[in-house]
Amino acid sequence: MSADCATHAGPRPGPGPCTDRERLARAALSRVAEPGDEVIGAWLRDIGPVPLIRLLTGAAEPPPVVAGKAVSAERMAGYRIRAAGLDPAADLAAVEAVGGRFVCPGDTEWPRQLDDLRDARPIGLWVRGRPSLRKWALRSVAVVGARACTDYGAHVAAAFGAGLAEAGWVVVSGAAYGVDGAAHRGALAVDGATLGVLACGVDAAYPRGHTELIARIAERGLLVAELPPGGHPTRSRFVMRNRVIAALTRGTVVVEAEYRSGSLGTARRAQKLGRVVMGVPGPVTSGLSAGVHELLRGEAALVTDAAEVNELIGRIGELAPERHGPVIARDLLDPVSAKVLDALPASASRNTRRLARDAGTGHDEALAKLYELQSLGFVERHGERWQLTRNSPGSGGEPRGGP
Amino acid sequence: MSADCATHAGPRPGPGPCTDRERLARAALSRVAEPGDEVIGAWLRDIGPVPLIRLLTGAAEPPPVVAGKAVSAERMAGYRIRAAGLDPAADLAAVEAVGGRFVCPGDTEWPRQLDDLRDARPIGLWVRGRPSLRKWALRSVAVVGARACTDYGAHVAAAFGAGLAEAGWVVVSGAAYGVDGAAHRGALAVDGATLGVLACGVDAAYPRGHTELIARIAERGLLVAELPPGGHPTRSRFVMRNRVIAALTRGTVVVEAEYRSGSLGTARRAQKLGRVVMGVPGPVTSGLSAGVHELLRGEAALVTDAAEVNELIGRIGELAPERHGPVIARDLLDPVSAKVLDALPASASRNTRRLARDAGTGHDEALAKLYELQSLGFVERHGERWQLTRNSPGSGGEPRGGP
Repeated sequence: MSADCATHAGPRPGPGPCTDRERLARAALSRVAEPGDEVIGAWLRDIGPVPLIRLLTGAAEPPPVVAGKAVSAERMAGYRIRAAGLDPAADLAAVEAVGGRFVCPGDTEWPRQLDDLRDARPIGLWVRGRPSLRKWALRSVAVVGARACTDYGAHVAAAFGAGLAEAGWVVVSGAAYGVDGAAHRGALAVDGATLGVLACGVDAAYPRGHTELIARIAERGLLVAELPPGGHPTRSRFVMRNRVIAALTRGTVVVEAEYRSGSLGTARRAQKLGRVVMGVPGPVTSGLSAGVHELLRGEAALVTDAAEVNELIGRIGELAPERHGPVIARDLLDPVSAKVLDALPASASRNTRRLARDAGTGHDEALAKLYELQSLGFVERHGERWQLTRNSPGSGGEPRGGP
Repeated sequence: MSADCATHAGPRPGPGPCTDRERLARAALSRVAEPGDEVIGAWLRDIGPVPLIRLLTGAAEPPPVVAGKAVSAERMAGYRIRAAGLDPAADLAAVEAVGGRFVCPGDTEWPRQLDDLRDARPIGLWVRGRPSLRKWALRSVAVVGARACTDYGAHVAAAFGAGLAEAGWVVVSGAAYGVDGAAHRGALAVDGATLGVLACGVDAAYPRGHTELIARIAERGLLVAELPPGGHPTRSRFVMRNRVIAALTRGTVVVEAEYRSGSLGTARRAQKLGRVVMGVPGPVTSGLSAGVHELLRGEAALVTDAAEVNELIGRIGELAPERHGPVIARDLLDPVSAKVLDALPASASRNTRRLARDAGTGHDEALAKLYELQSLGFVERHGERWQLTRNSPGSGGEPRGGP
């Protein structure tokens, strides 16, 4: 039986930790399968990563019928060709060389909302950046839209990026030109949290013109990819990347999109996954707003600023713990987070600079830890300042929402 | 008992025709009451126009408690002061002098959907223009919005005015600067039907800068007012005028509106009356779209062009007769309409010019009759040409919508 315990029938048991052998197997499979390959996904569910890669590289074959469908001989041959001569240890070393890691189902850092993708769940995620992917994803919202956006679209995307980041949200997008880039930059401009989901390897920079932006996201936020290091984007990889953005986040805001555009695909995917889908209106005379208006004439909610998004996807401190289990105990915090938390007095607020000094950490590290502490319900941000929440785990205050 | 038979309890009996005495009494009352005065409305319902004006001008007084509320002494005194020295015959003569008429409940031309306003129903409507107010109102849609609109708003209003008129709708608005004027002009530009509801007398032109536009509407469409000839607009009269626009039409489209603007009032009124409320989005960076977006975040439907409005308020030929009783028989048509209809061959289309020549009428008269015939389900417009509908009363064709 598989070590991959994330099954879909009945209550999901806590996934067992991902072993080194499994991680190596999943790294190998991420070179064998295209993102979102549901045959590989179903095999993974049925027989687990280690037996699967062994079958694909050995004499025997994996089950020829999976999830009720026959796997064609051509497809099977394709898998076996790609599975020959893999060196997953080299990929793991390559991602570590750029300060990254390969996060798998079963890891504490795995964002479990991706399990909603069922057999299209990523095999694993190649990640760069210091924050915890799981914690950040819990309080994330996507801002997506047209590459060839108008000045209006770029302005609006930047404003939403900044406003959502200021409200404590992690702004997720695809690091593309246009709306994506403006959303990331808006978040970075207010020292906020932002996460880029790439359709290439996390060691690459696509598009080239966003090399500097992507480096900044890796430095101050998170970069995530399904493709192993060195992977190149293709049209279908962009499309499949969008499902990760949809599943990872609590909601998706579409800023400018033409009819039949990729951003609309992300939105529809998010809708099917039960996420909140929102659209920013624009002039009816603009073809770049036509797709958004089409969404808004359906189920999507119209939003004009970050505060309205906030209303729709709920307050971070209140909803995230409720949906994703209890917050962790204070004594389970990592040492740096614990020092930053200790630096906050019981009944006063502090800015990040002061907290970093008192905790003896760097500014950026303190900021990253503060965002994590916020997502865990320990602290709240008010403008430039941080303070303990009244119901902070370990604090003796009244629960929030009390009289 | 009152001769005003439009009661609200139980099925409404067909209103008796409005007599000359009643018309004179209602004309007088339209000088005594401000538009939308529900005390006068309740008295009218309870005792009818002739006894009411007699009481207000005589020694006795009307009932001091009406619709469950006491009428204050000051209010009663105000009515009596305004009722002294009235000359309603002069007002009727004045409106006739400009080619108009005073249409009252009970008249065949009375638009019965105004009865939805209950005690705030207009006492009567001063009308200029050739078409039948009732027939036009049955296929009307309001396009309203900010006076100080942007170029975008003016462009969009004109496009909706033209598109709706081309689809056979009567475009209703308030003849104000900005969106209103652009909507009327858009309809006129395509030789379409348009109706202005004024907050002043139909012999006046407010705003002054729209003197020419208002004259064109009177010439080629319809002008409607609650105020008798010579009446001046006030702030509250603008507000009350909006309820007539809301009630008269099947739906209201809001094009650019700030928070707390008059156009939003019209929209909310339309919503309460069960009419379809629609809004045209714009840039979220524009304060002039903020009110529309607020509407769209509520119950209003987002529309980006006339075709979408059409979808929401239904096809004219199908819905109007269903809602407002059967279409009239061919032999009940007025002589000019009958001539125009006779000029249409059984299975070919004609343009307006040709039909006017064949019917021996002027171009504008033929066009007005054709719109009336369209509202009655006799003819259909296709671009510049007219043809008999397949289920035209008196034609032997299959019903529309059949296989």
